[in-house]
Amino acid sequence: MEFPSKLIENAVIELSKLPGIGRKTALRLTLHLLKAETETTSSLAEALAKMRFEITYCRTCHNISDTEECGICANKLRDHGMVCVVSDIRDVIAIENTGQYQGVYHVLGGVISPIEGIGPSDLNIDSLLIRIPDSEIKEIILAISPTMEGDTTAFFLSRKLREFPEVNISTIARGIPMGGELEYADEITLGRSIVERQRQAK
Amino acid sequence: MEFPSKLIENAVIELSKLPGIGRKTALRLTLHLLKAETETTSSLAEALAKMRFEITYCRTCHNISDTEECGICANKLRDHGMVCVVSDIRDVIAIENTGQYQGVYHVLGGVISPIEGIGPSDLNIDSLLIRIPDSEIKEIILAISPTMEGDTTAFFLSRKLREFPEVNISTIARGIPMGGELEYADEITLGRSIVERQRQAK
Repeated sequence: MEFPSKLIENAVIELSKLPGIGRKTALRLTLHLLKAETETTSSLAEALAKMRFEITYCRTCHNISDTEECGICANKLRDHGMVCVVSDIRDVIAIENTGQYQGVYHVLGGVISPIEGIGPSDLNIDSLLIRIPDSEIKEIILAISPTMEGDTTAFFLSRKLREFPEVNISTIARGIPMGGELEYADEITLGRSIVERQRQAK
Repeated sequence: MEFPSKLIENAVIELSKLPGIGRKTALRLTLHLLKAETETTSSLAEALAKMRFEITYCRTCHNISDTEECGICANKLRDHGMVCVVSDIRDVIAIENTGQYQGVYHVLGGVISPIEGIGPSDLNIDSLLIRIPDSEIKEIILAISPTMEGDTTAFFLSRKLREFPEVNISTIARGIPMGGELEYADEITLGRSIVERQRQAK
């Protein structure tokens, strides 16, 4: 595709570096911005740059934060005895949106992945182990995606957490999603959901 | 959806103003930028702002240009006797990509749309009429989308262009798209493609 202007071309190239945005979509977005008020573009550009350069992370749980301590860690009403370990900030947002969890978090910042060269030392694991002694932590929930890398990370963590026998370790329940059809579930999920069946209250 | 940081929230809000980008996609893009090098974000923000604030339009054809006269108008090898009138810069890019057109363009900057309050005076129509006298223009091709607004605009233009009997007016061919199935074509397109059938060379 040839562009009538270098400026357009640059904008398209930069936009199409984003995941899920190809050159056609990038061109559509660029021409949209060109038609809209100049303010639309300036506030977009400013919001992105500000977000990237001014963002800080909570010193306790490594969640995104505008302050040294994130809103969840600073909230005295939350259960600081329960720590949910997640790989990513996205997961914190997803769990928060359920409205079902009142504890605090610990964001690992990824999962162990030898292929991508991510080892345990690249993740926020040490800071989790430091958090536990002399704290009120009673339970650690490993809420890591059940992929190969995620399971490896969970396994590594649960071995590390054996140091603290007073802390209970749990993982999020696996099984058939709500509204999911049994016949479309993969065999491993369906098999595990039978093995780990839940007894109904009488 | 609640966000852990105002900076993230702002970035998501600004991104989701773009067409076809919802809040979930905007969050995914934001978190992608957050994980990538800071340079990715700064060059994106810079490219967008630069594109919006430094873009200029060709004084002859109103195409996007980095200079006063666009590359197409400045090109002496192109046929300046043939002007293709399009509504949008997007159309110039689309036609250029076919590699089938050697003439020059005139970008109207939209179509007549009473609903959106766009009248003939909001479009680059006068500058087209001024272009014609004492020029080498022999043919004007109206390449405007066959929508209601597009047809209105083409009709308005062809009446205005009656002033110049020495200039031939044509429109792009309508019909079944290449590779299109007859049975899926709408009745109007199919009907017109029969009425305006093309005689084959023997």
